[in-house]
Amino acid sequence: MYSSGRGKSSEKMKKSVFITGANRGIGLGLVKEFLKNDNVSIIIAGTRNLETSEALLSLGDDTRLHFVEIDLEKDETIKAAFRKTQIDDLVGDAGLDLLINNAGIHVPLDVNAPIDREAARQTYEVNVIGTLSVIQVFKPLLLHAVSNNGWAHIINISSIMASMVHTFGPFNRHWCGYSMSKAAVNMMTRTLSLDFMKDKIGVTAISPGWVKTDMGGDEAPTTVEESASGLAMFTMELGEEQNGKYYNYDSTPIDW
Amino acid sequence: MYSSGRGKSSEKMKKSVFITGANRGIGLGLVKEFLKNDNVSIIIAGTRNLETSEALLSLGDDTRLHFVEIDLEKDETIKAAFRKTQIDDLVGDAGLDLLINNAGIHVPLDVNAPIDREAARQTYEVNVIGTLSVIQVFKPLLLHAVSNNGWAHIINISSIMASMVHTFGPFNRHWCGYSMSKAAVNMMTRTLSLDFMKDKIGVTAISPGWVKTDMGGDEAPTTVEESASGLAMFTMELGEEQNGKYYNYDSTPIDW
Ligand SMILES: NC(=O)c1ccc[n+]([C@@H]2O[C@H](COP(=O)([O-])OP(=O)(O)OC[C@H]3O[C@@H](n4cnc5c(N)ncnc54)[C@H](OP(=O)(O)O)[C@@H]3O)[C@@H](O)[C@H]2O)c1
Ligand SMILES: NC(=O)c1ccc[n+]([C@@H]2O[C@H](COP(=O)([O-])OP(=O)(O)OC[C@H]3O[C@@H](n4cnc5c(N)ncnc54)[C@H](OP(=O)(O)O)[C@@H]3O)[C@@H](O)[C@H]2O)c1
Repeated sequence: MYSSGRGKSSEKMKKSVFITGANRGIGLGLVKEFLKNDNVSIIIAGTRNLETSEALLSLGDDTRLHFVEIDLEKDETIKAAFRKTQIDDLVGDAGLDLLINNAGIHVPLDVNAPIDREAARQTYEVNVIGTLSVIQVFKPLLLHAVSNNGWAHIINISSIMASMVHTFGPFNRHWCGYSMSKAAVNMMTRTLSLDFMKDKIGVTAISPGWVKTDMGGDEAPTTVEESASGLAMFTMELGEEQNGKYYNYDSTPIDW
Repeated sequence: MYSSGRGKSSEKMKKSVFITGANRGIGLGLVKEFLKNDNVSIIIAGTRNLETSEALLSLGDDTRLHFVEIDLEKDETIKAAFRKTQIDDLVGDAGLDLLINNAGIHVPLDVNAPIDREAARQTYEVNVIGTLSVIQVFKPLLLHAVSNNGWAHIINISSIMASMVHTFGPFNRHWCGYSMSKAAVNMMTRTLSLDFMKDKIGVTAISPGWVKTDMGGDEAPTTVEESASGLAMFTMELGEEQNGKYYNYDSTPIDW
């Protein structure tokens, strides 16, 4: 059962991709970029709330684009998103070639203020535990893609703030919880890259740059288009060489 | 008010130290090592439950040794431990020179099994959020030591498993939640080291090695004595040069 005619040899280059947090910011930018790319066979855009995802819904009637509700804090939505992605009219037995874990939050945490466990907890729950949960649930679909195409790839959207080497100054005060969560995402990338190697599933951490979005703010030097086009191009090329590594969106390596 | 005669010039080398998780394993080993060291003026041993801390209680009647109950998951115990440490017969206005965040847990997490949020949450709650909470609450005591001695130091007991470079193989499968938490501890170390610089409080991450304890298991090559004596010696020497860095217990640097 190869639902959409995707086979080992015929359309080897075509890839299916699932993106979380696709209703705004970098995630939405990624959907737009993948729509421009003929080598993308299916784009599954994950969003917490489809009804309020106007910008995403307005992307038109390209038959490659599908919407799935998924909230990284709610296991049942992750499992439902998996089931919906698996069914025939989406990827079916062809599986999923690229899983882009883009959804993320920043909850300010002042280390010089009284204890605020909730800020650190929330950030970790979404950015780390949520991302790992999506990977755990979606892995069977990636394995399907491996059987068909020999390789599948998980992209964890990290941050330059995950780098121990490039840690910023006092600016980090309110970003400490966020930085810790993204460092954990990098470690997840490392450990899974070793563990999933035998499965032929690659795992790569990519920083999108400092981008003009709700999270990045207006002062950010990089536009969503610039970051997303770099990311989209780079993710399409990922293979064993990039497994377990950490890059900028323009494909230059970043020191851990 | 210099409760125990510790002043700027008279006994400049003497240091007071607070250790969490001091009732067994590496924490208990550290207490024993510090007791042997004449340059340690006060040792405050933190434990979750004093009643069941026989090995710690049996360390005798050295007047420098004090016990304080502290549970990294319970804010009120952290605040009570702070109050108890602050009072005159302990450090008083002399403050605290060394805070050793040693308490930690490992909750196995199988990334190839169904979602298990609780394992990752618990590990993060103790190792990261608990440690940060202790730092937030105890900072005023470290600042007191800075006024008196010009410098104070926070030691976060990390792990080689926090290193992105030295990530192990599939072994990491069950250690993923733990590794992520310790990578976050390293990032906490980095961000706080920059933020606390102006306060003259150093923050350093130190791996104790792979040590024969309940956590490390019997196959571990390093004894508690070996690790703790290295750690105790190294922590007494910490200063600005080691701020924001990551070392092995024998003082050799580790790559992030
Ligand atoms: N912008 C930057 O400068 C920058 C820099 C470094 C890294 N990053 C990373 O890049 C990724 C995208 O960031 P962005 O700048 O595009 O942020 P953004 O504009 O704030 O968008 C965040 C996206 O994540 C989604 N999301 C948040 N919590 C979620 C949850 N529990 N379940 C599912 N989706 C959830 C949001 O959905 P809702 O609309 O439903 O909230 C939204 O689609 C994040 O991982 C971020 O950490 C961004
Ligand atoms: N052993 C190794 O090979 C190794 C390697 C790398 C890093 N480490 C790190 O070294 C540190 C000490 O490890 P260890 O080997 O000595 O472990 P251990 O023998 O398992 O002892 C752990 C200590 O932490 C305490 N603790 C746990 N949860 C706590 C909480 N919520 N509040 C307060 N105290 C708590 C324990 O108290 P209870 O007795 O009350 O549970 C105990 O005193 C940990 O941070 C660990 O991650 C160890």
